[in-house]
Amino acid sequence: MSNGDIFTGEVIGTAILILFGAGVCAAVTLNHSKAKSAGWIVIAFGWGFGVMAGAYTAAPLSGAHLNPAVTVGVAVDTGDWDKVPLYIVAQLIGAAIGAVLTWALYYAQFAANADEKNALPTLGIFSTVPEIRNPVANLVTEIIATAALVLPLLAFGQVDGIGIGPVSDGGGTVIFGSGISVLLVAFLVVGIGLSLGGPTGYAINPARDLGPRLAHALLPIPNKGTSDWGYAWIPVVGPLIGAVLAGLVFNAAF
Amino acid sequence: MSNGDIFTGEVIGTAILILFGAGVCAAVTLNHSKAKSAGWIVIAFGWGFGVMAGAYTAAPLSGAHLNPAVTVGVAVDTGDWDKVPLYIVAQLIGAAIGAVLTWALYYAQFAANADEKNALPTLGIFSTVPEIRNPVANLVTEIIATAALVLPLLAFGQVDGIGIGPVSDGGGTVIFGSGISVLLVAFLVVGIGLSLGGPTGYAINPARDLGPRLAHALLPIPNKGTSDWGYAWIPVVGPLIGAVLAGLVFNAAF
Amino acid sequence: MSNGDIFTGEVIGTAILILFGAGVCAAVTLNHSKAKSAGWIVIAFGWGFGVMAGAYTAAPLSGAHLNPAVTVGVAVDTGDWDKVPLYIVAQLIGAAIGAVLTWALYYAQFAANADEKNALPTLGIFSTVPEIRNPVANLVTEIIATAALVLPLLAFGQVDGIGIGPVSDGGGTVIFGSGISVLLVAFLVVGIGLSLGGPTGYAINPARDLGPRLAHALLPIPNKGTSDWGYAWIPVVGPLIGAVLAGLVFNAAF
Amino acid sequence: MSNGDIFTGEVIGTAILILFGAGVCAAVTLNHSKAKSAGWIVIAFGWGFGVMAGAYTAAPLSGAHLNPAVTVGVAVDTGDWDKVPLYIVAQLIGAAIGAVLTWALYYAQFAANADEKNALPTLGIFSTVPEIRNPVANLVTEIIATAALVLPLLAFGQVDGIGIGPVSDGGGTVIFGSGISVLLVAFLVVGIGLSLGGPTGYAINPARDLGPRLAHALLPIPNKGTSDWGYAWIPVVGPLIGAVLAGLVFNAAF
Repeated sequence: MSNGDIFTGEVIGTAILILFGAGVCAAVTLNHSKAKSAGWIVIAFGWGFGVMAGAYTAAPLSGAHLNPAVTVGVAVDTGDWDKVPLYIVAQLIGAAIGAVLTWALYYAQFAANADEKNALPTLGIFSTVPEIRNPVANLVTEIIATAALVLPLLAFGQVDGIGIGPVSDGGGTVIFGSGISVLLVAFLVVGIGLSLGGPTGYAINPARDLGPRLAHALLPIPNKGTSDWGYAWIPVVGPLIGAVLAGLVFNAAF
Repeated sequence: MSNGDIFTGEVIGTAILILFGAGVCAAVTLNHSKAKSAGWIVIAFGWGFGVMAGAYTAAPLSGAHLNPAVTVGVAVDTGDWDKVPLYIVAQLIGAAIGAVLTWALYYAQFAANADEKNALPTLGIFSTVPEIRNPVANLVTEIIATAALVLPLLAFGQVDGIGIGPVSDGGGTVIFGSGISVLLVAFLVVGIGLSLGGPTGYAINPARDLGPRLAHALLPIPNKGTSDWGYAWIPVVGPLIGAVLAGLVFNAAF
Repeated sequence: MSNGDIFTGEVIGTAILILFGAGVCAAVTLNHSKAKSAGWIVIAFGWGFGVMAGAYTAAPLSGAHLNPAVTVGVAVDTGDWDKVPLYIVAQLIGAAIGAVLTWALYYAQFAANADEKNALPTLGIFSTVPEIRNPVANLVTEIIATAALVLPLLAFGQVDGIGIGPVSDGGGTVIFGSGISVLLVAFLVVGIGLSLGGPTGYAINPARDLGPRLAHALLPIPNKGTSDWGYAWIPVVGPLIGAVLAGLVFNAAF
Repeated sequence: MSNGDIFTGEVIGTAILILFGAGVCAAVTLNHSKAKSAGWIVIAFGWGFGVMAGAYTAAPLSGAHLNPAVTVGVAVDTGDWDKVPLYIVAQLIGAAIGAVLTWALYYAQFAANADEKNALPTLGIFSTVPEIRNPVANLVTEIIATAALVLPLLAFGQVDGIGIGPVSDGGGTVIFGSGISVLLVAFLVVGIGLSLGGPTGYAINPARDLGPRLAHALLPIPNKGTSDWGYAWIPVVGPLIGAVLAGLVFNAAF
């Protein structure tokens, strides 16, 4: 894979992921949306199918990481860190683009919200907001939830017939999605959402949180509320620690 | 594929798609339905499994486009526009037939609704109705949502082992669904519904909106309310623009 | 396949199907159930995964029809009617056994219901009950809904790589489920439930309705309410007509 | 498979299973969780995708039993009981670890609950609690529900193309998950939850209930309520009886 393909694939794939993910949060949060208050099952499947859409699209170009935690978990497993910065930069750019597309798609709903007397805060559409603000607890939640993503993802590479696994092409080692592999990862993300998302909203992906938070801060959304930069380090640091732990457990166990 | 097979496949497949899609809208909208008010998750999966049912049925005959936006996206990708009119005409006919079948299946519920003092408007069962009427915003919503369908669909054709991709047979180039391909497209449509359907009800398919709207206008449903022709151009034009954009992005990126 | 294998497969498979299907109706209907009032999405997926469980179990023995409408649809397609009575008898026996198992599994809930002053009628747990009683409309609903099951099922046999299709073994022609075939049929049944089940509760299977109705009439459930034999012909005749129509359309189109 | 691999696989896989399963119960039960009261569909899919995550992870190491009932059902089928104790010990240890991880992930929510005047009992997050306490009825429920897991699981091994089945490697006979096999088992567990979980909360797995109950008894959760050891034998004995019955039926029928 060329650097250009990796960049293109990660930007497009992560943008699609965030369009679906932030999109479903807009869908259930904003007034004048047909999915208003449609519930946690909708959120979890919306994010999961966003993973499916983005990752199958990115797979032939970049191997579909779409998540710095996945990139780091793979690097811990393989020992090859060369392309890690390229992946992460592309993921952040893609995530910000996805947030902008979500805002455009729900433009009329954002505008109506801004006009209301008690406008809803909009950050939760773009980035994660914990239910109970407790840095240590929130960090532990993100660490465990991300390890529950990355360890199975690495282990899936050992399973015959599902089309996932570290593929070395001389220029780096990637996870390449073929066959049903990406669908399984999508359902894994649905499961993480349903089961482990309760306390913090399951960032489990630094780009998924930081890119849209940046977009939220910069976009001219009237009456948008805080971008809450004080919390922003947790959904970055937690997933990275979780990914490293998962990579170490994987290397020890397999 | 012969023209006859293409016509038959698209008519039957689109009719099945609309029977399930309009069917689930009837199911959650009309009184005296066991699924009354069953929520957005039901609507999104009902449409998605309608795609699955219709597209696997049509696949061996026509390659299962079932959507003028898909037909146009494929044509932009391949440069072959010869059979585009045939596909679109068959899709519109199939969509209208599906709407009639839905009306027949929910006949007693439509009749009961017509007898009520405050009969519910029925157009939303057949065609899309925006939550906030704003032509520019509604058009942008349909453009982005359709691009989020067509770009992954084209990209899926590059992925090994999922049985989807442009197949040339000398008489045109089609997307042919084998293996798990159609299931993945079905889940993609579920995801679009969950995440991107909030503002306009996600036409993302001109035939899906126009065919049933025509049926709604013509069917002898008493007390049926307006067919709202003033809005009808948006779910036609938006998806076509989105499909062209997706085809161009695909050609540039892959 | 020997007659003994066919009999065993259809009895076990249909019993599993009904255990899950009647089970989910008990789960959402009866008081003192953790799934009480859990909604239409639960019912549709409960039935669908019941199809998956029963049909993969029966597939190696009998080809997993589990439904007289499927048996008849296959016979219309192939012209081979020899084993139709064997299949149907086994399906009815299996369905009745499944109903008895459901009653045993929810025994304490049925007992608690019987003791209540306003005991809920229990027939709806075992068999279908229309929302609006209108024989012609109910029949049309079952005809269309069953055709929407059988036509795709027959068409799936033409699709490469999904492991379904008429398989002749010299002693009759069966649908044999391998690969992902049964999963797709399960999701098809989920879709029919979500979209087409509103008016009558989607029998789409004479054995699914008649076997449990017989069990309901015979089981010593106190305070169980009517078995409503006046309606019992509709979920038998409607699905059979729908299956024949689907077989004829399939033969004409493919 | 070496004893070490079996032990490692079963510990890790069962820990993941319980993290997702107890996690989803925490998610819908505890206050200050984003999934509070999200309903039965969330619980059933959370457990099912937990099976998927844990079993694909464990598959290459141990064949992914994750459940003493599965281990016993396989032993009844094959007659090889040598490694049964190893599997069961590892499953219990893994289940307890999964319960501890769940407590850590929801730490802030457990702490907030303990501080409330009417703290919710927490046992239901970790282990099963029947809706109606009736030992015979509860035992019958667990027997039938577990047989509905183990019989299809064994039968799936006879189906071509789904990558599941008894695999002998000289050192014991295991179920090894490749291809889509584990996904099908996951959906089977979703179906059991939706349809058969109403009366007792579907243990269907002695380790799933006993390991977390032990963790619940030992963990320093303030105000945690009873660990209800009087009920603990039912979700152990019921599933084991169900598994033996399923193995006997399988051996007779196939």
